[in-house]
Amino acid sequence: MRVFNFSAGPAALPLEVLEQARDEMLDWHGTGMSVMEMSHRGKAFVSIAAQAEADLRELLQVPANYKVLFLQGGATAQFAAIPMNLAAPDSSVDYVHTGAWSKKAISEAKRYANVNVAANAGEPYASIPAQNGWQRTANAAYLHYTPNETIGGVEFHFIPDTTGEVPLVADLSSTILSRPLDVSKFGLIYAGAQKNIGPAGLALVIVREDLIGRARAGTPAIMDYAAMAKDGSMLNTPPTYAWYVAGLVFQWLKRQGGLEAMGKLNQAKATKLYEAIDGSSFYANPVAKDARSRMNVPFTLARPELDKTFIAEAKEAGLVTLEGHRSVGGMRASLYNAMPMEGVDALVGFMREFERRHA
Amino acid sequence: MRVFNFSAGPAALPLEVLEQARDEMLDWHGTGMSVMEMSHRGKAFVSIAAQAEADLRELLQVPANYKVLFLQGGATAQFAAIPMNLAAPDSSVDYVHTGAWSKKAISEAKRYANVNVAANAGEPYASIPAQNGWQRTANAAYLHYTPNETIGGVEFHFIPDTTGEVPLVADLSSTILSRPLDVSKFGLIYAGAQKNIGPAGLALVIVREDLIGRARAGTPAIMDYAAMAKDGSMLNTPPTYAWYVAGLVFQWLKRQGGLEAMGKLNQAKATKLYEAIDGSSFYANPVAKDARSRMNVPFTLARPELDKTFIAEAKEAGLVTLEGHRSVGGMRASLYNAMPMEGVDALVGFMREFERRHA
Repeated sequence: MRVFNFSAGPAALPLEVLEQARDEMLDWHGTGMSVMEMSHRGKAFVSIAAQAEADLRELLQVPANYKVLFLQGGATAQFAAIPMNLAAPDSSVDYVHTGAWSKKAISEAKRYANVNVAANAGEPYASIPAQNGWQRTANAAYLHYTPNETIGGVEFHFIPDTTGEVPLVADLSSTILSRPLDVSKFGLIYAGAQKNIGPAGLALVIVREDLIGRARAGTPAIMDYAAMAKDGSMLNTPPTYAWYVAGLVFQWLKRQGGLEAMGKLNQAKATKLYEAIDGSSFYANPVAKDARSRMNVPFTLARPELDKTFIAEAKEAGLVTLEGHRSVGGMRASLYNAMPMEGVDALVGFMREFERRHA
Repeated sequence: MRVFNFSAGPAALPLEVLEQARDEMLDWHGTGMSVMEMSHRGKAFVSIAAQAEADLRELLQVPANYKVLFLQGGATAQFAAIPMNLAAPDSSVDYVHTGAWSKKAISEAKRYANVNVAANAGEPYASIPAQNGWQRTANAAYLHYTPNETIGGVEFHFIPDTTGEVPLVADLSSTILSRPLDVSKFGLIYAGAQKNIGPAGLALVIVREDLIGRARAGTPAIMDYAAMAKDGSMLNTPPTYAWYVAGLVFQWLKRQGGLEAMGKLNQAKATKLYEAIDGSSFYANPVAKDARSRMNVPFTLARPELDKTFIAEAKEAGLVTLEGHRSVGGMRASLYNAMPMEGVDALVGFMREFERRHA
């Protein structure tokens, strides 16, 4: 029996996508082989790869002057690749620190450039610093921020203003494809696949063409955007199966009505869960209301000694991976695209029943 | 209908493995979710990961003082990671140049260290330079070679002697797990997964513990062996599904009798195909007999104008991906572990029939 899986990532995938992957496992479209077994240079896989890129471009309305790269190494590889490609060794880069993931991005970037932390929300991460207080560097090579922090459950509800020529760089690992996005406002966006895109082991980079071609000396070939763009992300063997599954997800998203429809559904899912939390004195969420994540909803119980009981009983009810991040504790429900409203309804119902019995 | 797929990589996987992956796609062992959907920190995936490593260690009899890393970025990422981790910036490293892949490894290493090409087989790559002619550097940080070149179909039938303290480093992408290997003779071995291990997007590194912990400044975190070893290859989200499928392949290999049995079968497969080529005046293989690959068998037709007909008719017979590499032309049959003897028999039968009709 399938469960409702609230994992923060790797996360639930649409059932239809898994069924299709299952049905095509031994023989993709009459080729007599699995996608896993295909040469990445062969006609079949080249068509799969091209279709996935075309569908992604359509969903996100990616402007023609942006390259789409299908890479390995996750967002963590990009923490290094971004300064290596976009910043000269002696240049300054601005970062906004709003949680555990921007902190990691900052830590890695410090190895490659002078990092100025333009704003720091501070622990416990529970708000987004107002933009008018940010201390930005003139002529920074870029401004980096993390639109959604999966651990704190903190999210930007605005796109930062860019000043002059400073490109905006965003780690969209946990919100990409969850609602419409104006890609043209960004110099570069990137995302690990394992939340809203597909299997772990794939990362997307969407980068404005004028920003590539100046990777510093010593940038590994697989991290050089220009080299990867030149070869259509096939400078080396790409993660073909993950690319294929991502393509199935893109087609599923189109069948759901695209990002407008997903955005409405995701807003409704998050609203329902936050209302259940706020309407109770037993559950609490610590994040400022204007900074709450629509993807990752942490919550605590009034009686933390019941945490383990909550997790155990939820699991019995088919609601799994609700443990909070090990650094935070409590609970966390991630509501990515593949989590249906029925899953949120089931969680909210369970929470009410649990409160009734234990409050 | 399944075909016999002679792709050089990504390559055929054992049918049993694909069937198991298919059957477990929606619900792994009663968890109610696909392996693709599992948190890499959860009990289920941690058990999958640990079992895969244990099975790999058993198959290869990896000594206890070696770390096994499950990484992203393929062998190409290792072309950079190896000098970054094993060589100081001003040190010298020795490489043996025997084909297209060692050439790429050399090209990438030159960005990080002083590369001495100890021997160069020269194009067309068709032999292995005798060891007594190698010009090696005293105190090289390591000696790197490529035991099997998938494009030229050239293979070392010996393990190079290591002199004193120079660690031996080998790109085993195309031969790992195809027969027994004495890991203790190496400082580091590595392999992209997509030939004998599992899906593309996973790379294995097996490295002697005393060689790690001295990555140079500027090494991306995901390429730092010590950091990855410390976190059990989970410094960031690993390619979970590829890791799982690799684990299924390891269990399949154990059921086949392990590497002794695979080595015998692979030798028999290669011998049968080379005998068919050598016994004909219509087919030819250009490689010196003591350097022929047991994994990748390139061959040409006496009438190259028939290449396309050969490919087309072979495909009709269910024998696919026999095109030679675009840089070489002709044909190439890759005979990795998952290619059964029946596939070789079918190919040899087809070749005889084709020759009879066209010679």
